[in-house]
Amino acid sequence: MPYVNIKITREGATATQKAELIAGVTRLLQEVLGKNPATTVVVIDEVETDNWGIGGETVTLRRQRGN
Amino acid sequence: MPYVNIKITREGATATQKAELIAGVTRLLQEVLGKNPATTVVVIDEVETDNWGIGGETVTLRRQRGN
Amino acid sequence: MPYVNIKITREGATATQKAELIAGVTRLLQEVLGKNPATTVVVIDEVETDNWGIGGETVTLRRQRGN
Amino acid sequence: MPYVNIKITREGATATQKAELIAGVTRLLQEVLGKNPATTVVVIDEVETDNWGIGGETVTLRRQRGN
Amino acid sequence: MPYVNIKITREGATATQKAELIAGVTRLLQEVLGKNPATTVVVIDEVETDNWGIGGETVTLRRQRGN
Amino acid sequence: MPYVNIKITREGATATQKAELIAGVTRLLQEVLGKNPATTVVVIDEVETDNWGIGGETVTLRRQRGN
Repeated sequence: MPYVNIKITREGATATQKAELIAGVTRLLQEVLGKNPATTVVVIDEVETDNWGIGGETVTLRRQRGN
Repeated sequence: MPYVNIKITREGATATQKAELIAGVTRLLQEVLGKNPATTVVVIDEVETDNWGIGGETVTLRRQRGN
Repeated sequence: MPYVNIKITREGATATQKAELIAGVTRLLQEVLGKNPATTVVVIDEVETDNWGIGGETVTLRRQRGN
Repeated sequence: MPYVNIKITREGATATQKAELIAGVTRLLQEVLGKNPATTVVVIDEVETDNWGIGGETVTLRRQRGN
Repeated sequence: MPYVNIKITREGATATQKAELIAGVTRLLQEVLGKNPATTVVVIDEVETDNWGIGGETVTLRRQRGN
Repeated sequence: MPYVNIKITREGATATQKAELIAGVTRLLQEVLGKNPATTVVVIDEVETDNWGIGGETVTLRRQRGN
């Protein structure tokens, strides 16, 4: 019954990679806490780099500097 | 003053249906808890089926199998 | 499969009222969008009035003034 | 280490304005709580006006009436 | 830089189990998407069973019936 | 009408500091985006250090090492 929300910057994650994240997190919750995979919900949000800040600046700006 | 976030898969909900959700949740909070509708906020997130997982797999895959 | 998060101030909502919110939101999503109640998840967060702000001030302060 | 999520309606906020929000919130958390800016994360969600409700109706409808 | 929020019912997860979840999710994001562990943030919310609904009823009620 | 959620570790923020955060974020949204303070909602979540991870480990562990 867990609910997991994963937020990442929108920088080209493929459908396959997202499916791997969903499978992996669901398995982890089963292994660590015995949670039933059938009712584990995972939602992935992909966020524009203009809308994600760390260290007081946008990821867009960090990427331009090569970070 | 309540804040409600509704997450659904992006599968064609119309503007009218979303307005019905907003009106319905706001009314429910007034009826059950006496919350003031004027300051009740409802935000609906529509999530791509590739980004929504349940049972360890994406909704995209489930839809392909007819679920 | 929807996921709903309801945030309210912690001001004495009873277990019965919270059960009514859960039942009501689940029914609404079924009626408006045909969502399967069996996989609809609702999470209620009760937030201390010191931690909730509206109009630039805490709800604690508003309650002291009689709002 | 704080995490801040800002939700606004999608009504033309520019990249510069979003960068100002990110810088301003990060600074505020440093000034008020001494939080390290290097690990402060800010995520801005821009939400369609059809998907945002207040007072039981969508922002789309409110804007049409001139609110 | 990812941000992950895991919501589970408050039913006795230990500090060790929560540390395993945090380590496991962080590793998964590195393996699948190459995300830097140093800036991956994971927040776990433990929710009272009265405040978690599935299938239109609270987890408290389901537990009483033996689910 | 913005909604802001601030998550910090529970490490002794006072009611006064939380009120300053609420006032400061509300003012920032007015200055940068012209948002109406009257309908700006801010919710602060204080999270136990066992439940907050960064760099793949809990904040509890980091604090024990002096970070």
